[in-house]
Amino acid sequence: MRSICTALILVCVVCWAQPVFLQNPVNDSIVIRRIYDAALTEGSAYTNLYTLCKNAPARLSGSVNAAKAVDLTFEMVKLVADTAWLQETMVPHWERGEKEVGHLIAGGKNINMNLCALGGSVATSEHGLTAPVIEVASLDELKLLDASLIKGKIVFINQMMDEKLIDTFHSYGGCAGIRVRGADEAADKGAVAVLIRSLTTRDDDFPHTGVMIYKSDTRIPAAALSTNDANILSDYLENFKDLPFYLKMSCQTFPDVKSYNVIGEIRGTEFPDEIIVVGGHLDSWDNSEGAHDDGAGCVQSIDVLHILKEMGFKPKRTIRCVLFMNEENGAKGADTYALNAKSEKGKHIIAIESDRGGFSPRGFSVEGNEPMQTQCLNKLLAWKHLFAPYLVHIFTLGGSGVDVSRLKNQDVALLGFIPDSQRYFDVHHAAEDKFENVNERELQLGSAALASLIWLFSEYGLTNP
Amino acid sequence: MRSICTALILVCVVCWAQPVFLQNPVNDSIVIRRIYDAALTEGSAYTNLYTLCKNAPARLSGSVNAAKAVDLTFEMVKLVADTAWLQETMVPHWERGEKEVGHLIAGGKNINMNLCALGGSVATSEHGLTAPVIEVASLDELKLLDASLIKGKIVFINQMMDEKLIDTFHSYGGCAGIRVRGADEAADKGAVAVLIRSLTTRDDDFPHTGVMIYKSDTRIPAAALSTNDANILSDYLENFKDLPFYLKMSCQTFPDVKSYNVIGEIRGTEFPDEIIVVGGHLDSWDNSEGAHDDGAGCVQSIDVLHILKEMGFKPKRTIRCVLFMNEENGAKGADTYALNAKSEKGKHIIAIESDRGGFSPRGFSVEGNEPMQTQCLNKLLAWKHLFAPYLVHIFTLGGSGVDVSRLKNQDVALLGFIPDSQRYFDVHHAAEDKFENVNERELQLGSAALASLIWLFSEYGLTNP
Repeated sequence: MRSICTALILVCVVCWAQPVFLQNPVNDSIVIRRIYDAALTEGSAYTNLYTLCKNAPARLSGSVNAAKAVDLTFEMVKLVADTAWLQETMVPHWERGEKEVGHLIAGGKNINMNLCALGGSVATSEHGLTAPVIEVASLDELKLLDASLIKGKIVFINQMMDEKLIDTFHSYGGCAGIRVRGADEAADKGAVAVLIRSLTTRDDDFPHTGVMIYKSDTRIPAAALSTNDANILSDYLENFKDLPFYLKMSCQTFPDVKSYNVIGEIRGTEFPDEIIVVGGHLDSWDNSEGAHDDGAGCVQSIDVLHILKEMGFKPKRTIRCVLFMNEENGAKGADTYALNAKSEKGKHIIAIESDRGGFSPRGFSVEGNEPMQTQCLNKLLAWKHLFAPYLVHIFTLGGSGVDVSRLKNQDVALLGFIPDSQRYFDVHHAAEDKFENVNERELQLGSAALASLIWLFSEYGLTNP
Repeated sequence: MRSICTALILVCVVCWAQPVFLQNPVNDSIVIRRIYDAALTEGSAYTNLYTLCKNAPARLSGSVNAAKAVDLTFEMVKLVADTAWLQETMVPHWERGEKEVGHLIAGGKNINMNLCALGGSVATSEHGLTAPVIEVASLDELKLLDASLIKGKIVFINQMMDEKLIDTFHSYGGCAGIRVRGADEAADKGAVAVLIRSLTTRDDDFPHTGVMIYKSDTRIPAAALSTNDANILSDYLENFKDLPFYLKMSCQTFPDVKSYNVIGEIRGTEFPDEIIVVGGHLDSWDNSEGAHDDGAGCVQSIDVLHILKEMGFKPKRTIRCVLFMNEENGAKGADTYALNAKSEKGKHIIAIESDRGGFSPRGFSVEGNEPMQTQCLNKLLAWKHLFAPYLVHIFTLGGSGVDVSRLKNQDVALLGFIPDSQRYFDVHHAAEDKFENVNERELQLGSAALASLIWLFSEYGLTNP
């Protein structure tokens, strides 16, 4: 009697908890528990991340280490995929050259500043340049200034990331323009170089690099100052206008080179032509190990295949891990992948990107054309209770990732994995983005959350009610 | 017309979002946004934590640094409270003495082991002791062994924290018995000392201390090995049974000493006799700066008063910050506080403890006698939507904290602040629990979550529908 009651209660609970899709929730929750157990006890992400970060740090597109990273991860993918291959793509090749030199000249002294060239910047002359600095608080302020105030000077854009925003990616989004477009806007008014405050909410001594883009024909050198040094420079300029600053950079852009996306898949047993992608980007900036950005996303994507394979699952739909080359400064790998996807026999239904660091998982965001976006969000909301025991609570509309978003016009539901964002910009694009700053449990819980969601999609598809 | 429609829509949204308590949700959400802004831009927790950790690290009850911590935080509290006072309490006084020495003797060599005495342990003789080691996997296994196998030996309890549990406090709870009761259980069978595997899920070289308790008259020395060295010791013992181990510890228990809880409050304007407590514990272990455990909880509790004061709030109910002395090895401060609370004119309605580290906030748990527990949980659930924009999602029944739980028989709703638990036991009770391992944003978001909840309770009370 007691067991019948228990069973009835269980059925009631299950029905109540499944407002939209009545699938096999008891079995689903058991499978997800097994996925988490596997990820936390025999997951591969953390050890693979060590291998990647220590053997192929600074794997900027076109570099020797980017090629090493392709070789290394191709071996990792081959171990866990039914089929693995390299997808050729041409990528840009920019090099920082010698360590940059920058100092403020004040009271007859040189005050050294921690700075680094922005990715894509031109060099100064080999002797460097010296010019007075003028500080502005934002691109908008720069645009309002008369060119006569700017001409011949170094523009210092000292915009802080808004620390009041809870999602630090929103703060970053509100500030990234100074890095990407600062040089053009300053050159437009006759500046000879641009310095930006590093994009981080933390006060530290590390310059944070990142891509900048020239659209103007006048190309001036562009560099990021550490936030501590940005504060020092700003303090000086408050008391002494137009102090001279010396800057020397020897960065250079070379012809594009051949590189690869690394791809592996477990073929679906029932619907092999429905393809689910999970991916991260294999390239990193040249001043870091690229541990959180985006070694984490790569090794988690490989771990999804590893976990499902170790558990002996035969997914109904094809699950494909894609490590995209060149997200940081061109997304050429993603463009190549999207172009090839169009002519594939199979149809991509879901693409999930992990490119927000290996932190404690909080949820998933979804974007895409209709009806995919709504179908996908409804699925996520119906599965929400399956993730609650794992403290994954956020299922929302929102951005996915630079790489998978290239598939948008192919009617794919695009998802972004959302880990906790509070610490990401402490290390982003800077020397502190190293293996030691990744926590094993946080990283492996990310693998588990990704593997669980991908397993659900592989079982139930996107449109199946 | 348009503004009337907007107003109507607003009313509908507000009513829909407030299934239980119809308070003033629009105003509430504005106030909470202001609290978060204040915490993230002018919060005091991070700077106060630096002061506390660097000037009064290793502030174990009865130590000089514990007295310094009282002085330091009393000054901090006086700055933000209407009234501040010290509450006298007697506390135990145990000292580690000289750095412990421990090595395994194998193949004619001494293999040094990172270990530390457990808090409360007796010393070895001044020459140390040498005895063969026997490994057991748990207290249960130890209990099953015949005393003849244990007599004269050092028992090594090598139980791992269960890494599969998502909440690491559950893993800790399942393992803490080896630390607290290991010595008694081993002594009961004639062991001469006990070594335990440190209570952390990470493989590291830091021994993690913590309280142990003797109930038996036979008191044997008790120490924790780093997890890396526990693995090494276990590997040796697998091949060579009964290898000898040398242990030397000079710890000592002194007579109890006078110490203090540090208390400050902002008096309620309408219901001053309804008291809301927010607190952490001021003492820490002697081998760390006590940054996460529990400097974080202390400075967040002070920050709650700071934030509300800076914003010019006059709370309806009394908000009291309590920094409890001696949570780690006796909870004598909490006992004293609870005893005094009984005879106070005011009635405690809510007590919230922050003692799970300064990590990214996830939620609150509540416990207490009925009807307080249910009343409180219902309030939390009704306010859940106010916290969703701040990514605080967990509102559940569950433990509060060692200190506030002493108020349980006074019919107080007891709450525990829940930050993300993944990294806590990496540093818990070990040298790595230092200021540099606390992230400013995570810590300040904790202040904000606490201040927001406390403001809501101060406005609406516990029983007010």
